[in-house]
Amino acid sequence: MSDISIGLLDSMEAPVSADSVTLELLRAARATVRASPLGVIETPMIPWSQTTLPPCGPCNIHIKMENMQRTGSFKIRGVANQFARREKGGHFVTMSAGNYGKSFAYASKHYGSKGKVVMPETAPTSRSTLIQSFGVEVERVPTSCMMDTVNRCIQENSMTFLHSYDDLDLIAGHASLGFEVLEKMAKPDVVVVCCGGGGLLAGVAAAIKLSGCHQTRIYGVEPEGACTMYRSFIENRPMGMDTRSIASGLAPPFAGTLPYELCRRFVEAIVLVSDEQIKMAVSTLYKSGLVVEPSGSAAFAAIVNGKIPDMENKNVVCILSGGNIGKDELTHFPD
Amino acid sequence: MSDISIGLLDSMEAPVSADSVTLELLRAARATVRASPLGVIETPMIPWSQTTLPPCGPCNIHIKMENMQRTGSFKIRGVANQFARREKGGHFVTMSAGNYGKSFAYASKHYGSKGKVVMPETAPTSRSTLIQSFGVEVERVPTSCMMDTVNRCIQENSMTFLHSYDDLDLIAGHASLGFEVLEKMAKPDVVVVCCGGGGLLAGVAAAIKLSGCHQTRIYGVEPEGACTMYRSFIENRPMGMDTRSIASGLAPPFAGTLPYELCRRFVEAIVLVSDEQIKMAVSTLYKSGLVVEPSGSAAFAAIVNGKIPDMENKNVVCILSGGNIGKDELTHFPD
Repeated sequence: MSDISIGLLDSMEAPVSADSVTLELLRAARATVRASPLGVIETPMIPWSQTTLPPCGPCNIHIKMENMQRTGSFKIRGVANQFARREKGGHFVTMSAGNYGKSFAYASKHYGSKGKVVMPETAPTSRSTLIQSFGVEVERVPTSCMMDTVNRCIQENSMTFLHSYDDLDLIAGHASLGFEVLEKMAKPDVVVVCCGGGGLLAGVAAAIKLSGCHQTRIYGVEPEGACTMYRSFIENRPMGMDTRSIASGLAPPFAGTLPYELCRRFVEAIVLVSDEQIKMAVSTLYKSGLVVEPSGSAAFAAIVNGKIPDMENKNVVCILSGGNIGKDELTHFPD
Repeated sequence: MSDISIGLLDSMEAPVSADSVTLELLRAARATVRASPLGVIETPMIPWSQTTLPPCGPCNIHIKMENMQRTGSFKIRGVANQFARREKGGHFVTMSAGNYGKSFAYASKHYGSKGKVVMPETAPTSRSTLIQSFGVEVERVPTSCMMDTVNRCIQENSMTFLHSYDDLDLIAGHASLGFEVLEKMAKPDVVVVCCGGGGLLAGVAAAIKLSGCHQTRIYGVEPEGACTMYRSFIENRPMGMDTRSIASGLAPPFAGTLPYELCRRFVEAIVLVSDEQIKMAVSTLYKSGLVVEPSGSAAFAAIVNGKIPDMENKNVVCILSGGNIGKDELTHFPD
C-alpha cells in the first residue's frame, strides 16, 4: 500500500522552502543518522557484474543496496532524523501501510514513544500485525476516512503528525544515502533513484548537488501509473492523481511539496517505467541473488530498459531502495 | 540434487597428491579464472550489519557473496579452470543435477564443446531443461545406474569425464575465491566454508594457508545428515555414507579423496548444522535482502548458531556459496 499524502489544514506547519535545505543542514542530519540508536546501516555499494545490462553499450554500474537496510528500506534514514529532532516522549501519528509505517513503528519502539499508524483497511493484515508487534497502535479505516482519522488524532488526542515523505527532517535524513554514494564514488556521472512522494529522490539529489557534483545527472523513476512527480514537472506545481502500480510504495496520490521544489532544483528529469518492466526487474535481481521489492526495483528497471539517456562509458549509480517483499508475493513474478 | 561421486575404475587417472597443490599452481589457476571467457565475477565481500548475530558477542563478520556469481554459484570458478586446461573440442561427460551441472553446461556452450550430464531420474525436470538449454545432452537414469552410464560414455563414446569436486584443476579454480578474500581482508582470523565433496573448502583453505595465513582458522560446515568429511576426519580416510539433507548440494555420498587430503592439511575442523538451522539461515538471509540456497547458507547457519569456536572480537569471513533456489521452493521455508 502506498503512503498517502493528506491535507491537514488545521495542523499544518508553515511551508518549508527549498532554500532551507543547505549542505550544513544535510551534514548535520547525516551525523544524526549515523549516531542514531536505530542502527541505520551504511549499506554496501557494489559493482553490477551480471549479464543483464542496459542497451547503451558498456558502462560502469554500481548498485546501492538499500534492500539490506535496517527495516528493509531507506525509510529508516529519514525516520532516524525525524525522531531525533522531535520532542522525546511525544505521541506520534502517521498514515502508511508501507515501508514508512514499518520504520515509524521500529523507531517508536526504540524511542519508547507512543505511536499510531492509520492504515487503509485494504492493506494486508500481515502488515498491521508487524506494526503492532512494535507496540504501535494501528487503526484500519476506509481510504477516504484516513485524513479525518488523523485530524481527529491531532485535535482530540494531541498527537503530532509525522509525514512519510513531505517533511524537511525526513528528507534531510534520506540525504545521508547521497553522501554515502559520494564516499564510494566521488563524481558519479549518473544517479538513478526511485520516486514516490519524492522524499528519497529530493534528499539524495540535494546531498549530491550541494556537495558540488554539478555535472552529475540525477534521474527520478516513477511507475507509468503513478507519475505524480512527472506530471508536477509538466505543470510546474506539485500534482496529484489517481495512482495505480504494482510498486505500491511509489504510488502515493500526491507529489510532496518540498520534494517537488527540491527535485525541480536538483533533478535532471523524471522517467517512467511500466509495471511489466518493474516485475522483470524484480525477477532479474532475484536471479542475481538479491531480494528487492517492486518499489525498490524501479531505478534498475529504468536503467536496463534504456530509459536513462547518455549512459555509455559513464559511472552510474542505481539505488535499490527496499527489499520488503514476501516470499509468497514473489511467486507471482515472472521467472 | 547432489553431485554424486563415482568409482570409475577403468578410467581413473593416477591419484593426485596434496603435495601437487602449490601456491604457484593456485596462482596460475587464479590467473586462468580471471582471464576466462566465462566471465567469472570477483564477487563482493561486504560487512554483515544485520541484527541476526552469533551468540559469542561482538565480532566483525564479512560475507562473501558467491550467491551473485555467474551461474549462481562458486562452481563456475573451478569449471573455468577445468575447461581451460582440457583439450579444446573435447567431448565431456559428468554426473550432477546441481550447481556443477549448471556451470558445466554454461561452459560447454561458451567453449563450443560437446557435453553430457548424467542426472538421477529423481532430479527436477526444470534442471534438465535448464542444462539442455545450453546445448548439453542430458540422460536421466536411476541413481544406481549413473556410474555405469558414465563408464559407457567413456568407453563407447570416448568422452572425457570431469569430476564435480574431486579434481585438481577444479579445486585450483575454486582457490581463486580464497585469494579474493585475502585481497579484502589480509589476515582473517576465521573463514567458514560449506563442505559437500570438499572441493570448495579444500581450494579456499589451500589458497589462504599457502599464502602464509598460518594463524587463520578455516572451518568446514556440513549438514548433520550428510557429514562425509566429518566422518573422514574421524576415520582418517575419505568416507562415504547414505546422505540426506535439504542442502542437496552438500550431500554427495562420498568425500573427495584430494579434497580430504587438503582439508586434513589446511582445515581446523568440520562442524555440523541441522537442516532446521539451514532453513532458518535461508530465511534470515532472505529477510536481509539476499537470495541464498540451502547449500549456500550452511556456513552462515554455523556462525549464527554458535558452532564456530572463539569468534569474539575476531575478523570472520562467511562464504555464501550459491543462490540457486526457485521462488516456489522458498515458500517452504519459515518466515
